[in-house]
Amino acid sequence: MQNIYDNEHFFAEYENMRGKEINANNLIEKPIFFSMLPSLSGKRVLDIGCGSGDFCRFAMSSGASFVMGVDCSKNMLSVAKSYDDGITYLNLSMENLSKLDDKFDVITSSLAFHYVEDFDKLIGDIANLLKDGGELIFSQEHPVATAFKSPKGGEIDKKIDIKGKRYYLLSDYNNIGKRIVKWNDSGVIKYHRNFSCIINTLIRHGFVITSVMESYADEEAIKKEPKYAYQNDRPYFLFISAKKL
Amino acid sequence: MQNIYDNEHFFAEYENMRGKEINANNLIEKPIFFSMLPSLSGKRVLDIGCGSGDFCRFAMSSGASFVMGVDCSKNMLSVAKSYDDGITYLNLSMENLSKLDDKFDVITSSLAFHYVEDFDKLIGDIANLLKDGGELIFSQEHPVATAFKSPKGGEIDKKIDIKGKRYYLLSDYNNIGKRIVKWNDSGVIKYHRNFSCIINTLIRHGFVITSVMESYADEEAIKKEPKYAYQNDRPYFLFISAKKL
Repeated sequence: MQNIYDNEHFFAEYENMRGKEINANNLIEKPIFFSMLPSLSGKRVLDIGCGSGDFCRFAMSSGASFVMGVDCSKNMLSVAKSYDDGITYLNLSMENLSKLDDKFDVITSSLAFHYVEDFDKLIGDIANLLKDGGELIFSQEHPVATAFKSPKGGEIDKKIDIKGKRYYLLSDYNNIGKRIVKWNDSGVIKYHRNFSCIINTLIRHGFVITSVMESYADEEAIKKEPKYAYQNDRPYFLFISAKKL
Repeated sequence: MQNIYDNEHFFAEYENMRGKEINANNLIEKPIFFSMLPSLSGKRVLDIGCGSGDFCRFAMSSGASFVMGVDCSKNMLSVAKSYDDGITYLNLSMENLSKLDDKFDVITSSLAFHYVEDFDKLIGDIANLLKDGGELIFSQEHPVATAFKSPKGGEIDKKIDIKGKRYYLLSDYNNIGKRIVKWNDSGVIKYHRNFSCIINTLIRHGFVITSVMESYADEEAIKKEPKYAYQNDRPYFLFISAKKL
């Protein structure tokens, strides 16, 4: 997995964006993600790709009995560790979860799984880290947003806007694998998986799907940032909750 | 639900298309649908939107103990009933499944559910018709293929092809409801539902999702009809199998 968050220039741009209250994470991703959470009171919670620890602090303040956050970025973890809050942080990439020998009631991950190449191993590792009946809740970029693929030797638009309507490039939707995207002037590597691949991988590792959500901007989000009105009816993030049998 | 198959002109065009061996149903939809079926031997099977009875005859020849087919089209059923094969056919629309008081082990439906407005009622009725542990296997048009919606008072392309790549109009992906599509010179009414709506409705009615598939044309299909090569990596049909707890 690429560790773009430890690229100095990228991290500065990212901090600048996330520092603003008005961004897609706060206005669109978080409300849906939080609406899918079970009670965390008394639970052992692991957050994968914890970044600067926002969710870990929320879990701790919600009464979790133990909270661990793992992230591949030292930059991110140095921000997280600046709080004195009893949370355990580990500099561990999502590829190496099998190094943990703990058991958790709830495992969460927000907008990180699309950076992982081996989704099958990731979900298998998570299944091993969950107690029976434990829950996984994660968000990632929506398959229609990661599907685009430029032809060899040329760039192609991943989306086209015509008369206020948005078209997505889906010719390679079923062609799962690496995608390179420009973000904050850097080339960010993501891995596209179609919907069936994501769902069937969870099922194969003993999960029962309990809920699926697709992102939208609600009225409150659009009031705060009118430009998100166009996100009302098109998907950008995918959210899944699943229970380990 | 619109009964387009009893429109004389539409039915003639449809029969003409389906009469050819080389079509998307035979080459793309059927192989995936059949790969998801459990053994039908000794089972009570209901096929919803059975059309001219192809699947019912397959179920009977696979050893099913009882096969019922329901369809809203008298045209279709008159073809189905021309065979003398012990299959029970009923002229019943998908909206009226609650009129049946039978129980089944397996319920199937091929490319019909996108014609139904009230998906919640449909899935609730199917849950009532299935024995505990019974299975539902269905295909329908893929959400990215039904998502398009023209603005009021104007037409807009549902897809755009550029440099051999295909873009889908997804601005209204989360806006579920009626869509009107031109097909065989007629205006066909379909109902778009996003992925989360489909999955969550099944879960709400006590189903456990067991598999999800998205259509592709395999090598054999492309050998028979090279023009389906472009369907290799873009989705057109969605397939779900689910078990009633």
